[in-house]
Amino acid sequence: MNKVFADLPVTIFEAMSQAARDNNAINLGQGFPDDPGPEDIRRAAADAVMDGYNQYPSMMGIPELRQAIAAHYGRWHGLNLDPMTEVMVTSGGTEALTSAILAVVEPGDEVVVFQPVYDSYLPIIRQAGGIPRLVRLEPPHWRLTEEALQGVFNHKTKAVLFNNPLNPAAVVYPREDLELLARYCQQFDTVAICDEVWEHVIFDGREHIPLIAIPGMRDRTIKVGSAGKIFSLTGWKIGFVCAAPPLLRVAAKVHQFLTFTTAPNLQVAVAYGLGKPADYFLDMRKELARSRDRLTKGLESIGFPVLKSQGTYFLTVDLSPLGLNETDEAFCKRIVTDYKVAAIPVSAFYEENAVTSVVRFCFAKKDATLDTALERLSDAV
Amino acid sequence: MNKVFADLPVTIFEAMSQAARDNNAINLGQGFPDDPGPEDIRRAAADAVMDGYNQYPSMMGIPELRQAIAAHYGRWHGLNLDPMTEVMVTSGGTEALTSAILAVVEPGDEVVVFQPVYDSYLPIIRQAGGIPRLVRLEPPHWRLTEEALQGVFNHKTKAVLFNNPLNPAAVVYPREDLELLARYCQQFDTVAICDEVWEHVIFDGREHIPLIAIPGMRDRTIKVGSAGKIFSLTGWKIGFVCAAPPLLRVAAKVHQFLTFTTAPNLQVAVAYGLGKPADYFLDMRKELARSRDRLTKGLESIGFPVLKSQGTYFLTVDLSPLGLNETDEAFCKRIVTDYKVAAIPVSAFYEENAVTSVVRFCFAKKDATLDTALERLSDAV
Ligand SMILES: CSCCC(=O)C(=O)O
Ligand SMILES: CSCCC(=O)C(=O)O
Repeated sequence: MNKVFADLPVTIFEAMSQAARDNNAINLGQGFPDDPGPEDIRRAAADAVMDGYNQYPSMMGIPELRQAIAAHYGRWHGLNLDPMTEVMVTSGGTEALTSAILAVVEPGDEVVVFQPVYDSYLPIIRQAGGIPRLVRLEPPHWRLTEEALQGVFNHKTKAVLFNNPLNPAAVVYPREDLELLARYCQQFDTVAICDEVWEHVIFDGREHIPLIAIPGMRDRTIKVGSAGKIFSLTGWKIGFVCAAPPLLRVAAKVHQFLTFTTAPNLQVAVAYGLGKPADYFLDMRKELARSRDRLTKGLESIGFPVLKSQGTYFLTVDLSPLGLNETDEAFCKRIVTDYKVAAIPVSAFYEENAVTSVVRFCFAKKDATLDTALERLSDAV
Repeated sequence: MNKVFADLPVTIFEAMSQAARDNNAINLGQGFPDDPGPEDIRRAAADAVMDGYNQYPSMMGIPELRQAIAAHYGRWHGLNLDPMTEVMVTSGGTEALTSAILAVVEPGDEVVVFQPVYDSYLPIIRQAGGIPRLVRLEPPHWRLTEEALQGVFNHKTKAVLFNNPLNPAAVVYPREDLELLARYCQQFDTVAICDEVWEHVIFDGREHIPLIAIPGMRDRTIKVGSAGKIFSLTGWKIGFVCAAPPLLRVAAKVHQFLTFTTAPNLQVAVAYGLGKPADYFLDMRKELARSRDRLTKGLESIGFPVLKSQGTYFLTVDLSPLGLNETDEAFCKRIVTDYKVAAIPVSAFYEENAVTSVVRFCFAKKDATLDTALERLSDAV
């Protein structure tokens, strides 16, 4: 069997969801809301299943959705994407990332990756024969630094994977960091694969700046998005890849042999959703920020030091001041069995030299869910 | 960019569908029906979108569907699959095949592949570092032979990819051929990756025998199926992988980084569909056989020599006796522009030493569609 995959653990998200089920725990681990998702978007999908087209759509996605994606990013970021040559629909953000990595990386290429790292990146880079060069980001700010980039970029750096907003750290990177990264990409002729699936899930009036919008990056950036995250319909598995034609063309060749295409009925509904007015997205952010604040205050009142979340469905807690004398992993194991609340140990996002004192909680839940979790955790510290 | 993918053509199915759209032609190329698909199954999906679960399901597929798959193969083939350790749901048959290939094949491994070959197999084998060993099958019978297998199997043969029923040849392999192949797999300790997506689309009372049911193959076969083909809902992209736990375990690790999971609402509907009584499937076969016969008779009456189809949505026509002095590819280009009917040149399924005289037509269409296509083709010969 293929050694790249054979000995990998089951992804931490699946493992913790399983642990939550096994322990009958509240699942604040894997990132998904506990509500059914926007009714009008679901209605559009149900209608398309009944009255629409259920056979193979175009491999690149239905034209309607590709146009909606281009128009959406035009409105939100002034991006000028050609829907037919610069936009592709995939079966979720994971497939989008895998298509991008396999399109760009060849045996011997170096690929810069930031820890904490989403767990699909490294196995796929290795499957491509790439050599990961890891940068370690650290709490509480998780910022990019010149020294760190200097230490890993060189003329073999084919690609960099960059996740912004950053899961699990819940950081939305400021322009300064993006410009720093862009400078290195240009200096070393590096393709940036940008996992921006959390782009709409940002709080407190923050702005998400797509790396592709930074001067000099338009032709060397592959932007990955996810309707599942944008519309809180994580099971739908509709992702997007946006990139200049020479990059997209090759990602499409990978996509055609990973899944070939994606359910047209769900695509129709996502196209409808992306056309919603700005208020829809701003309200969604406000509502999620409310949930963030509710969980933050609750955890703080129990005694947990919360690192404030700027975006994503997640906040993190720094265990180190608590003197618990246990790792994040031990802590998560303990609370899922003893307190019936599942969370994610941030060390699972490190391959080496892990930060072991930070735990991630998902707050994209009903008030009652958060309150019950808080009650259960009330004497965990 | 990655050389494995960068210079690949767009898949012939997509290219011919595009040519059909560009020429306003009837599309008898890519294999999909021109009806909306079973209403009750679509209704089950629409209901699940509105009332069911739209967030991440279990990575391996919803338990309900995994149980339905195991029970279905139990009823139809006496297979005894454990739904929890031997069944996985994927985002279509293509992802299922890619997961299987990447799970098994490592750099330097030889992989036996039969031409005509579905166009995803070779790029993914090469991405895995595998070395394809091609067997050339030939019209009109496309049978496996001892000599052919002897010429390619050896102690480096890690895997064989086998498509049965065979697209585009429309052959349903008899037990004799399966036993021959099974003997070689056992002799050389080879894993069989069986693309059986057409398993239910078989005619004239023929039986489809899954290779995994041949004695000695239970633990060395990865069986791939497709709800899109079984229920004529090709856009839904729900596939299955069935295999013994040590094989499935690794395929699941690949799957978790290709797509991670698949829309739960469509999974619910497929679970419902797989539970339908045998008559449903037998009626579907009868109805498709009727369409096959309609197109066969029509093409014969125009003067095309039709090779009779035993299964799949396809029949093939052998151009060689017609003395047209053009290849299958030229013929397909000519008829899509001049006669407004799209078909697929079978040479596109060969990487070397192609059969260039056979053209594939999809008959999974309404009577009126087939009749109009026949009218248009009436003086093509
Ligand atoms: C693909 S499951 C992981 C979902 C997610 O983004 C997270 O929980 O971090
Ligand atoms: C994935 S598109 C190809 C559909 C099909 O099976 C065919 O037309 O052969």
